[in-house]
Amino acid sequence: MSSTVSAADSLAALARVIESRLPQNGGNPDASYVARLLHKGPDAFLKKIGEEATEVVMAAKDADHGADKTKIVMEVADLWFHCMIALAHYGLSPGDVVAELERRVGTSGLEEKALRKVLAREGERP
Amino acid sequence: MSSTVSAADSLAALARVIESRLPQNGGNPDASYVARLLHKGPDAFLKKIGEEATEVVMAAKDADHGADKTKIVMEVADLWFHCMIALAHYGLSPGDVVAELERRVGTSGLEEKALRKVLAREGERP
Amino acid sequence: MSSTVSAADSLAALARVIESRLPQNGGNPDASYVARLLHKGPDAFLKKIGEEATEVVMAAKDADHGADKTKIVMEVADLWFHCMIALAHYGLSPGDVVAELERRVGTSGLEEKALRKVLAREGERP
Amino acid sequence: MSSTVSAADSLAALARVIESRLPQNGGNPDASYVARLLHKGPDAFLKKIGEEATEVVMAAKDADHGADKTKIVMEVADLWFHCMIALAHYGLSPGDVVAELERRVGTSGLEEKALRKVLAREGERP
Repeated sequence: MSSTVSAADSLAALARVIESRLPQNGGNPDASYVARLLHKGPDAFLKKIGEEATEVVMAAKDADHGADKTKIVMEVADLWFHCMIALAHYGLSPGDVVAELERRVGTSGLEEKALRKVLAREGERP
Repeated sequence: MSSTVSAADSLAALARVIESRLPQNGGNPDASYVARLLHKGPDAFLKKIGEEATEVVMAAKDADHGADKTKIVMEVADLWFHCMIALAHYGLSPGDVVAELERRVGTSGLEEKALRKVLAREGERP
Repeated sequence: MSSTVSAADSLAALARVIESRLPQNGGNPDASYVARLLHKGPDAFLKKIGEEATEVVMAAKDADHGADKTKIVMEVADLWFHCMIALAHYGLSPGDVVAELERRVGTSGLEEKALRKVLAREGERP
Repeated sequence: MSSTVSAADSLAALARVIESRLPQNGGNPDASYVARLLHKGPDAFLKKIGEEATEVVMAAKDADHGADKTKIVMEVADLWFHCMIALAHYGLSPGDVVAELERRVGTSGLEEKALRKVLAREGERP
């Protein structure tokens, strides 16, 4: 089986493990980092999204100055991981996110959303 | 073909489109939002990662108070999209990130990294 | 008059100017950047807080690698400026923030809040 | 003495306490939260700036939905406090930041910087 298939399976598998840590699914906050974040509620994992995004930026700036780029991969993984914890809390999945990204990779649709935002911003200028 | 496979293909396909927008691949900053960010350099897209992470948090807080959860999906897609722009700049791919997440979904390895960080933090306390 | 007094006056003066840009005070979104942000509502200026915090981090990382440190001052000023816009929207002032910081500079109270959070976090660990 | 003067004194006093926690000034990482952050180096306190900015945003969103606004003051104080730790590390002070904000409160200069950025962004659009 190709690594592409395996990669997709991994996202889905990770989502299933995270979902098993939800309070309503018996997640134990004393035994699991994910269960603890989910038990503490949105502020706990949303704060981590802000923190991990900052760590991605720091790893990237360090790479600009010669540091190992694999640190960026670790930090983006941390960021996406905490996003997936949030998604699970809200009954959403990484599949929903990928489907939205998929929707943007149309024949000409990739930059549609981003351009729409830019155009909206331009319309707002003084 | 299953939607899982299709989803994985989408991430890879999106990465290929983003890579085609790199300056060295002829990306045109006057015609493409992605090419423009890549042309402007790291600060331009790293700043967006901080901004988009904040938008994920705002959408989640709004959902906590009754707003539509699909906004969360849109904002996480925006965040991951800008992470993928950064990955492309550094010669990395979403496959690298998924492989790192995959590594964490071992028999008992899922929360290893997170727990390691928690333990390290505990060791640092006064 | 000492620069200390002048500095305090400046924060208060800046807050007054920002408050004059509030919609209820006649701020004109077509003529003023601040009025425009306030007119657009919380998401507009809260998003900027996330973005400007990221810019502080980037300027600091650049300084770590030899760049001009005055960039950090500019970016912290941008961050505090956008915080002051948020404060004005919620009927709060930089004086409230300074009073809270003041409260923490007691005989032994400076690190009380921070330590309280650390202790709370320790109590939460698995 | 007016509260304005007192407030300015507080910022300067807080900066002096933070500076006394610098490693080169004998700050003890085992006894002080600030000394510990400074001892650990930039990534430790820069990460906190990203985290605290996110907490400001969360407190503001909660206030939008009826929560106590004093939480915003606490979180902005946390954010500015960690900015001041970063400033101390780089040999800068809150006075430098206030001076920069002061510079912007000229007869017409307040929104000059922000408008300059908006104009620059407009020049960059595709």
